[in-house]
This record gives sequence, C-alpha cells and structure tokens, in this order.
Amino acid sequence: MKWIRFILIALVFISGRTGLLAEEGMYPLTELDKLDLRKMGFELEAADIFSEGQTSLSDAVVKLGGCTGAFISAEGLILTNHHCSYGAVQKASNEENDYLKNGFIAQSAEEEVEAKGFTVRIVDSYKDVSQEVLSALHDTMSFQQKKQAIQKKEKEIIKRTEEENPGKRAEVSEMFRGEKYMLFIYTYIKDVRLVYVPPVALGEFGGDVDNWEWPRHTADFSLLRAYVAPDGSPADYAQDNVPFTPKKFLKVNPDGVEEEDFVFILGYPGRTYRHYTASYLDYEQNYRMPFIVDWDQKQISVMQEMSQMNRDVALKHSARIKGLANTEKNYRGKLTGLHRLNLVEKKRAQEKEIGKFIDNDDQLQKQYGQVLDDINKIYNEIKCAMEQELILSYLTRNIVLLNVAKSVVTSAEERQKEDLERQSAYMDRNFEQTKKSALRSVGDYYEPTDKILLKELISKANQRPADLKIEALDKIFRLKTNESPSEKYIDEAFSGTQLADKDFVEKAFNITPEEIAELNDPLINWYIKLKPEYEKIKKINEERNGALDALYAKWNEVKKLYLKKDFIPDANGTFRMTYGHIRGYSPRDAVYCLPITTLQGVVEKTTGQEPFNTPQNVIDLFYKKDFGRFKSANLDCIPVCLLYDMDTTGGNSGSPVLNARGELIGLNFDRTFEATINDYAWSETYSRSIGVDIRYILWIIEKVGGADHLIKEMEI
Amino acid sequence: MKWIRFILIALVFISGRTGLLAEEGMYPLTELDKLDLRKMGFELEAADIFSEGQTSLSDAVVKLGGCTGAFISAEGLILTNHHCSYGAVQKASNEENDYLKNGFIAQSAEEEVEAKGFTVRIVDSYKDVSQEVLSALHDTMSFQQKKQAIQKKEKEIIKRTEEENPGKRAEVSEMFRGEKYMLFIYTYIKDVRLVYVPPVALGEFGGDVDNWEWPRHTADFSLLRAYVAPDGSPADYAQDNVPFTPKKFLKVNPDGVEEEDFVFILGYPGRTYRHYTASYLDYEQNYRMPFIVDWDQKQISVMQEMSQMNRDVALKHSARIKGLANTEKNYRGKLTGLHRLNLVEKKRAQEKEIGKFIDNDDQLQKQYGQVLDDINKIYNEIKCAMEQELILSYLTRNIVLLNVAKSVVTSAEERQKEDLERQSAYMDRNFEQTKKSALRSVGDYYEPTDKILLKELISKANQRPADLKIEALDKIFRLKTNESPSEKYIDEAFSGTQLADKDFVEKAFNITPEEIAELNDPLINWYIKLKPEYEKIKKINEERNGALDALYAKWNEVKKLYLKKDFIPDANGTFRMTYGHIRGYSPRDAVYCLPITTLQGVVEKTTGQEPFNTPQNVIDLFYKKDFGRFKSANLDCIPVCLLYDMDTTGGNSGSPVLNARGELIGLNFDRTFEATINDYAWSETYSRSIGVDIRYILWIIEKVGGADHLIKEMEI
Repeated sequence: MKWIRFILIALVFISGRTGLLAEEGMYPLTELDKLDLRKMGFELEAADIFSEGQTSLSDAVVKLGGCTGAFISAEGLILTNHHCSYGAVQKASNEENDYLKNGFIAQSAEEEVEAKGFTVRIVDSYKDVSQEVLSALHDTMSFQQKKQAIQKKEKEIIKRTEEENPGKRAEVSEMFRGEKYMLFIYTYIKDVRLVYVPPVALGEFGGDVDNWEWPRHTADFSLLRAYVAPDGSPADYAQDNVPFTPKKFLKVNPDGVEEEDFVFILGYPGRTYRHYTASYLDYEQNYRMPFIVDWDQKQISVMQEMSQMNRDVALKHSARIKGLANTEKNYRGKLTGLHRLNLVEKKRAQEKEIGKFIDNDDQLQKQYGQVLDDINKIYNEIKCAMEQELILSYLTRNIVLLNVAKSVVTSAEERQKEDLERQSAYMDRNFEQTKKSALRSVGDYYEPTDKILLKELISKANQRPADLKIEALDKIFRLKTNESPSEKYIDEAFSGTQLADKDFVEKAFNITPEEIAELNDPLINWYIKLKPEYEKIKKINEERNGALDALYAKWNEVKKLYLKKDFIPDANGTFRMTYGHIRGYSPRDAVYCLPITTLQGVVEKTTGQEPFNTPQNVIDLFYKKDFGRFKSANLDCIPVCLLYDMDTTGGNSGSPVLNARGELIGLNFDRTFEATINDYAWSETYSRSIGVDIRYILWIIEKVGGADHLIKEMEI
Repeated sequence: MKWIRFILIALVFISGRTGLLAEEGMYPLTELDKLDLRKMGFELEAADIFSEGQTSLSDAVVKLGGCTGAFISAEGLILTNHHCSYGAVQKASNEENDYLKNGFIAQSAEEEVEAKGFTVRIVDSYKDVSQEVLSALHDTMSFQQKKQAIQKKEKEIIKRTEEENPGKRAEVSEMFRGEKYMLFIYTYIKDVRLVYVPPVALGEFGGDVDNWEWPRHTADFSLLRAYVAPDGSPADYAQDNVPFTPKKFLKVNPDGVEEEDFVFILGYPGRTYRHYTASYLDYEQNYRMPFIVDWDQKQISVMQEMSQMNRDVALKHSARIKGLANTEKNYRGKLTGLHRLNLVEKKRAQEKEIGKFIDNDDQLQKQYGQVLDDINKIYNEIKCAMEQELILSYLTRNIVLLNVAKSVVTSAEERQKEDLERQSAYMDRNFEQTKKSALRSVGDYYEPTDKILLKELISKANQRPADLKIEALDKIFRLKTNESPSEKYIDEAFSGTQLADKDFVEKAFNITPEEIAELNDPLINWYIKLKPEYEKIKKINEERNGALDALYAKWNEVKKLYLKKDFIPDANGTFRMTYGHIRGYSPRDAVYCLPITTLQGVVEKTTGQEPFNTPQNVIDLFYKKDFGRFKSANLDCIPVCLLYDMDTTGGNSGSPVLNARGELIGLNFDRTFEATINDYAWSETYSRSIGVDIRYILWIIEKVGGADHLIKEMEI
C-alpha cells in the first residue's frame, strides 16, 4: 500500500498528459457543435445530443419542477430522483396508504396515481433574442428603468410566442448579464403519474446526516409516467389520457460503469456565479454567507427546542428545519471550499492582470478603465446595506404570519393591475399556486416559534448603530436605543391577528387594498408600515442590478479580449451538457475516497434508526448474496452510488448520467460537501458529484420491488 | 485509480503469503525468548529487548502513572504523551504562567519545574510466584474465602519483598485468572520534572472531536526528566537532586518511517478480555455497555445544560464531562466493533467446537464437561443483578457528596484495622492520596447537578419491578411503588449536609465510626443505610469472582489442550511487546485511510476555534515550507501522525514506537474508533493504533519551541 500515494501522483501526471482530466464546463446547446466531442471521450457527435428538427438525446431529457428527468421507455416512463418526486408522493399518501414509508408500485397502468403539481417540460426549440431584448433600452434611461424595460420586453416576447405557438410555453433566459438572451419554446405535459417509488428508508437513506456527503448509499430514484390527451396534446389529468410517446428515450445499460470510465450528464443546472468578480466573492465569503449560516443555525436551534416538547410541533417544523439545514450545510461547504481554494485572492490576481492589460492600451483604457472599480463600488454598497436588508427580508421570510401578511397585501395591490404588469406570482397563470403555498404555511404556523424569531430579529436590528437603525421597525415596536420591544405589545398583536385562520387568509387573498386596510389586523398593519422599506430596497436593488447588468456585459467583453477566447455562460436553468469520469478523490489529508460504493456499505451504516433503517428484505438479500445480474464482478457486490468529476449544480438533480455511447448508467442527485464550491468555481481536486448507480436502481426494482414488468418495459 | 482496489486486494494476498501480516499479541517478557524475532521482521534478539542482569531496551521503558514513557537521553530525559503529563502541567501552571496554554520550555536544568504527583517506575526483575499464591487455597474454602485468601497472600509477598529490597516496590500480577501469578520488583523514582511541553493547541489538537479518530493531527508528546538523590537512590523532590542516569536510553531516529515499515512497541497495556467467554461478551455487548452509554449520555447532557448557564459551573464539570465522553465514545466504538466482527457468534461457535472436543473424551468430559455451563450460569446471575448493582454503584460514584460520604465512612472503619487488612486505598501508603482526591471532588461539587442525577437514579430504581426494588433505597426515600421521592425531603438533606465543606471533610477523614455516627449528617446517614446493600454486593461478587477464577483456570487448561498450544495472557498492566507495520486501513465502504498524516492536514483542520486553534507560528512555518531536516521526501511535508496494525490498549499511551533496529520513530497515544474493540479481540481489518511521528516531535522542539539544546541532548 505504500504505492498508493505514488499511483495517485502518477495517475494525475499520466491523465494530465493524455487529456484524461475533466474540465470546467456546463455547455449550453449553442456550444455543442463548437466542441470536438470525440477528442473529449465521446463516441457520439454533437447532433446525437441536440439537433433542431431531428431526434436526439436531448429530446429524452426533461425538466421536472426544479429537477431534471429522462424518458427511459417508449411509453413515457421517466426516471428522476426520489427527492424530486417527494412532494407528489407525500400528497398521494394517506394514513391507509403511506407510499412515502412503504414505497409505491403500480403493477399496471390502472394503478398509477396522479403526481399532483408536477409538470414535465421538454425543449422544442431555442432562438437568440438578444437584439430584440436590448432594443428596449435607451441611453436616457436610469439603470432601474433599463432593468424594468428589459423585464417588460421579455414578457412581451413570451406572450407573443405563446400566442403564436398554442399549447406551448415560452421563456427568455439571460445567458450573459446584460448581453445575451435566449428564447426557449417548451412543451409542458401536465398529467404526470407515479409508477414506482422505493420506501423512503432506501430513497432517502442517510437523510440529513449524509446530505452533501460521500461515501453515499442512497437509492435516490423514482419512476413517473407522462400522460397526454388521446390526440397527443398536453392535457390536465384525465381518466382517458394515454401514455406520452417521447420522440426519444434513453437506452438503459444494466452493465454499469467502472472507475475512470468516461461519462456525461444532460440536464438543467440552476445558477452559478463563476464570472462574477472578486468583490462579489469577498462579499459572499466574508459577509453574506457567514451572516446567513449564523441566522439559520439560530432558527434551527429554536425550532428544534420547540419540537422537543411536542410531536405536532415537530411535524410542523420538520420541513423548515430540513430546508434550513440543507442551506446551512451547503453554505458551510462553500465557505470551506472558498478558503481552501483561496478563490478570492486568485480572482483578485486575475483581475489585476486584466487591469494591466487594459492600462496598456489607450483605447481599452477609455472603454473599460472604470468598469471593475464601478462593479466593486456597487458591491461595497451592497455590503454596507446587507444587514439591514437581510433583517428586513427575514422578517417576511421567517416570521410565518408576516409572510402571510405580505402575500395578502401584495395580492390586493397586484390584482388591481393588468395581468402583464403584475409581479409574476400574482399573474393569473401562477396565482392559485401562490395562494396554496400561503395556506400551507399557515398550516405549519406555531405561535411561540414566530414570536421568538421575531424578537431575535428585532434585537439584531437593535444592536445596529443608532444612525443605521431601521426606521419603520423603530416606529412599530416603539423602540428607543437598545431597548427590547415590550413583550406585552407583541403578545397582543399575535393574539389579535386573524392570519392564523385559513378561511380568513383565503378570503383576504381576494379583496381590495381598501378592504385590507379596513380589516385593521395588527400583523397586516405591521407589514403595511414596513412596506415603504421594502419598496425602497426594491428600487435600490433594481438600480444596482441594472448597473451591474451593463457593467458585467462590458467586463465580460474585455475579459474575452484578454483571454482571447469565448467562455461558457454561467448556469441559468437552461439545458446543459457536462462531461468527466467516474473518479475518486481525497477530501482531506490521509483520506482517499473510492468512486463506487456497495450494498455492503448500506448494511454497515444500518442502525435500525432513521435515517439508517434499511428494510429487512434488503438486508436479507445482501446476506443471501442475491445480486442477480446486477452484481459488479470487481466489487463482488451490488454497486450503490457513483462519484464523478463532472461540473454540476442544483437543478442537475435527477439528471441522467450517460456513458460514452449515450446509454444511461446512473442518476445524478447530489454533490460532495467540498463541491458546493461549484457555484463559484470548478476544482479538479474537490468538484465531485454523486449519482445512484443504475445497477442499484434495477436491482431494487427487480429484487426488492418485484416489479419485473418495469424492467421489461425498459427493454433490459 | 481503478487499480487501487486491485492493489489493496493484491497486497493483502501477497503479504498473507509472505508472512507480512501483523498478528494478535501483547507478548509478556516471559514469552520473548520463545519467539523467532528475526522471522517476524526484527533485526534484534530477545536479549536486546529484555534480559535479566544485562542492559536491554526494556530498561529504557518506564511506567508513568497509568501511562508508559521512555528514556531518550543519558541524563534521564523521558518522552511520554502530552495527555499523560497534562495533570502535572496543570498543577505547575498559574495565572501568570499558563504552561498548558502557552507550553513550557526549560532552557536549562534550573528552569525545570516539579511534575507534582508523578513517579517513574522501572522494572528491576520478575519471578513466577503462582505456587506460593495458590498455596493459600484449601478445598474446604468457599469461593469468597479463596478470593480473600489470594489477596492476603499477595499482600504478604509484597510486604516481604519490599522489606527484603529496601527502596523498591513490589507488585503481584495475575497473568491468567486463578492460575498464574508473577511478582515484579520495581524501582520508583519520585522526583520528576517538566522539561518541554508544547502548547495545548498542538498537544491536544483536535481534542474530544478527534479523540479515537483517524486521520489524526495531534502533537501528543511532552518531555520530563527523572531526578534522584546525589547518591543515585530514589528520593523525594529536592533542590540538590541530580538527573537520573538510566541503564539504557532509546536512540532517536530522525529519519522516521515509511508505509509498510516494520515497527514494534514496548509498554504497559492495561486490561484486555480476550480469553473470556461468549456469555461474558454477550453480557457486555447487550447489557452492560448499552446501559452505561445511556447513563453517561444522560449525565453529560445534564452537566452540559448546567454548564451553559455559568462559566464556573462549566469549569467544575469540564473534567467529568471529558472523562464521560471518552468512555462513552470508547464504548460506542466497542459496540460497533463487536457487531461488525460478529464476535459473540464467533466465540460461541468456537466454544461449541471445544464442547465437542470435550465430549469426545470421557476423561476430559469428567474434568471439564461442566466448566462452560458453570461460567455461563454465573454471567447469567451477573446479568440479572446488573441494573440493581449499577444503580447502587452510580449512587456513590456519580453523586459527588454520596461519594464523599462513602470515603469518610469507609475511612473511619478501615483505619481501625491493621494496615495489611485494610482496603488498599486506606492503607498508609495510599491514604493521603485518597483524602486528596476526595477533597478535589468536593471542590468540583455543584448542588443542582448532584440533585438531578440523584433523582434520575432513584427514578431508574423505581421503574424496576416491585419484587426487584432496592430495599435500602425504598427505606431512605420512603418510596411507595412507582412514586418519585419528595423534592422537599431531598432539598432538606442537601441543605443539611456539611459534606460540601472541605474543612469538615478533612476532619471527618480522621475520626472513629462512633464519631461519624454522632455527626448525624443526612447524607452520611443515607450512605450508612445503603452500606449493607454494598456489603451484600461485595460479598456476592467476591463469591462470583472466586468461582470464575477457578473456572477460567480450568477453561484455559482445556482450551490449550484443544488448540494444542499455549496462548498469550490478557493484558494486565505488566510489561509487554507488540509488533506490526505502518499500515492504512479501510474504516468503511469506499474509504481508504493512508497511514501517515501531514502538517498540511493540521492547517486544513485549523478553524481558529478550540480544539482546532493552531498557533500562528506553526501556520507561518508551514507556508514558508520551513521543514528543516525533518521533512519526508515522499510527502514533501512534515509527517504528523502514524497509523499501525499493532496490538495495543489503554496504558500503552506514551509507549515508544520502535523500528526493526529498536530506534525510536514514534510515540503511541491512541487507537482508532474501530480499534476500541482491541479489549475483546484483535482484528486485522480494524485494529489500528495511532502515534505521533518522531519527525513532528523533533520539528516542534526545534522550529516551534526553539529548544535546540534538547535536540542536542538526544544526540541527533
């Protein structure tokens, strides 16, 4: 074993020379034909991945809520993550049929149940509309006016396109800030059904403990099916709908992969910030993220304490705690990564070089000499305003009843406007969803938690220097310098409000601003008093973002000149391809993680307690070594999860992992703790993403679920 | 990297065939000349390790409190762990000179300060006294009488030997239960001084978080010096004492080791239980350890809660919490290991085979046919009595004032007896220490904690079935079935007792039983009422242990017949040798740990917060790559800690790690989480121990401490 270090070094050396290393890159469809795919390891052409008018792999890949999914049969069978269909499974469950706990198997089409609230989005086509979007701008406009003009133009394009393409949905995506805008036309399938879901003890094995961790042992998959009207057009859920026939479905390869195999991913990564400046990263690393981590930890500890006393309260808080813990761990990972990679300093060094490059050319100096300074100035403003803005934003985000107050008041105002003029959440197409989500949060409301968190935020605001106090808060809570609000005043407001009553809230969503004012509800009144602060902040931020749009467009221009090449736009929820290898890594000194885990590891981790409560039949099958044809000969076991050095981010959940021939061999669902840094930079050392091995998925479907008909449907 | 798994498998295979694998075994001095040391990898002979009358490596190895240490210079310089001299450093520190926090460097002999309470024990000789010890037994004795007879005989031998060897101390160690007893004669050096101690941020780097973990990055070392009277005889601390000249000191090898190098350890491992039966292990795994883990967690959480409110309380509880956390984690590790190795089942299978072996031979059947059944019967009794006995024992161990009450009452009684007849703690040679320790615990007493823990224990006792209630407890707390004791009654007792007063306690240690009774102290009275329960338990346990002594002696006889070989006795605090290799391991699925950590890892783990607050000069030296001659060329860094597959247990702390030529290359200080199982079995897969690399020690002394004179003294 003394050779291991040597081999690690040797391999990095060899692979560096043969081009085996992975690269940063979430390539948009527009970039594919510029790439030499063969050289990178593909056995495919660009046209096999995407080509307009022709059938290609991309036709099998869909967007499902915030996730990605892929067709894997001719009858519209879709493979995605368990955590992506979690909400639908929860909704379909009741006390009698707890599909979350027991899993769900439809033995026939008739048994498939509606996956409520799910839509499947398929790319039809795309088009560059930068010129049209930017034509809305005039030099005389302020930055805020520019931002609004662009948003309005986007809405116009969308509306027009949807009218020209009945039944389709259109979206405009900004590829480079203030510079490049693409119009995507999508087909939306609205009837989606549950087909197979493993028990949560497998599908979420490891839960929050293992979240963002490797080695992983989670069967994070589920099978859905897309349905359309008998004539093939998208339709709402209906008895006589028929399975959708996709243009293309992915071939499932039950032989899986080995270490160092070439792999690629198609999907919808959410947001990255790689082309942002050092000043932005410094703000994130040293100000925003630490502040949020601290506040999230506070919230979690308050809710955990409340939950200890009462099972009902625990249930109300569980989803919120889970969400906060997820973010908190993600941010901690990012902070670790930023420090380890010393990214701020590296960016700063590059910016210095670009600065020299600009200074050496009078023409460039004139055109770009001020850009970076101007960007930095704005981030400095953002930094100074951060605490005030975050505290105000937490008031309506984390205090449940203030959040509801905000929705109700905003609804009353927005619903007076023309549909196109409204905030997106209050447009007709989204309004029902907005209302439902408010009612759901009323259901999870627990008064003591709301009060404690409110007092915490007020005391945070109170600790600020006297000249930076938030005026409206001072007025509402009658604060004098450094005094805490009177308990009695807060108690009275909470006992006086009707916002904890669902019927009241439902009605309040459909009344006028005048009627809202007449309610004279104490919490609604608080929000109304706070509103000018939010409007002020909104205006300032539109101004800042408008300025940043223009500045980043210029900054990217000069960066391209300096680098003498185009670069890949940041992820923005549009379709992307990334490639790499099944590859281990060293997360820390003296530890090396292998890239394929096994069923042995599932059994090792099993404690019988959530989230490590493996069903007994899985343990029995393991001890019987009943692995069938899905066993890896190398590992002498069922492979469970895969690690690879591809470039992914949130939104890539549920993305198919494909081999060089475009066959499905895994299902992406997470990144390692260190790879949360992907949002800011891709690192060859630390950027590793995590998928379920297709062999574990097939083994569970066949051996654990006994759903042979699905294996047959996948043509294995 | 796809080869790594292959290499791991291949290496196990190759090394298995070439005899490179380590073996179970903490070999006593008596076994050394039976071993073929060369074949095992040594470049030494048995006589180099120990030979009576001649100088050998063992003369350099000493026992220091519960730890091991080794001479590394001709002037009595001793290397041991930081955690072994922690107490002495703490006592030598004051507000002005915080040696714990800042570390301690004596630039000359004059600056060396007393290591209070420390003695250095050196083996002079040993002798088999089994015959004499066992001669005390007569067939007519009960098991309890036998146990007492052996103890008395041991005390006689010790007293006689110490009289024959003035200035020496004697000890009788039981090598096999009821079978083999060795007399050791030791030299005790009583003047020990601190020479070099790194700052606690290095010496305890990682603290409780990293305790029992690998990869490790702790500089767990310190340097002491032994002093004797000018005539060379052991003497109490005195100004004109001179450095002790050891018969032998270890040669320090600054070149260190590489992966797979042969290594061995000399030291004083505490206790192991490898020759105990499956029924004993079952009792430990399924009854005793889970009960204790549960109670320790409860105690920790109570004390942590109390500590949150008040810094003083936190200080009082910190050592207790640390101790409990250490045991709790150790037990959790053991439970994990026992389950993973399936040890109970394996032992049971072996016992079945031995059973068949016995049944096949009439003679054996007659002699040994009942032995295992009889042992199992006793463990069954122990199991049934466990809860009651543990609750009673916790009352005087975990309720501080009841513990003090017990000491005071016992002292009054024991001090009436002849010195030899007393319990060891109350014999003249130990009495001062016993009193001091009681006064120390009074200093750490915090009433609310004592009360909560007392109530918890009473409620535990209360939950037992009516017919298994503890009579004395019922009487004291006037319990009726399932009722909690009255708060008022407990409050009155705690406000009435004087045991929280040090002066009172000190006086109480020196009075008669009658005077104790006259004090009429409520807590002392509780203990007096409980005493018959303890006496009953003591008698029963002496009975059980006497029986087990005899039964285990027989069981080991037949086991030797079955195995057709002698085997190594369990560790019992006597001098042992164990050997193996610098070797990594796979603690869990898809993770491989390398066996040498680096300074890079120290910097990676550093957060600035305890216990990861590396001093800035160490970080600066790392970034300057100022590694001097202690750098490992392979790792291009300072090696920090070592992992090896040797067979160690508690008591091996501070043991020197030696290369094949007997040169010092490391300092043992811990085991991995999985290796806590060593107490019950050695496992090639999981049994790994942890040491500080000598190169890190030397680098810190030279570069961080600037103590070049010590490097010179070690002749490097």
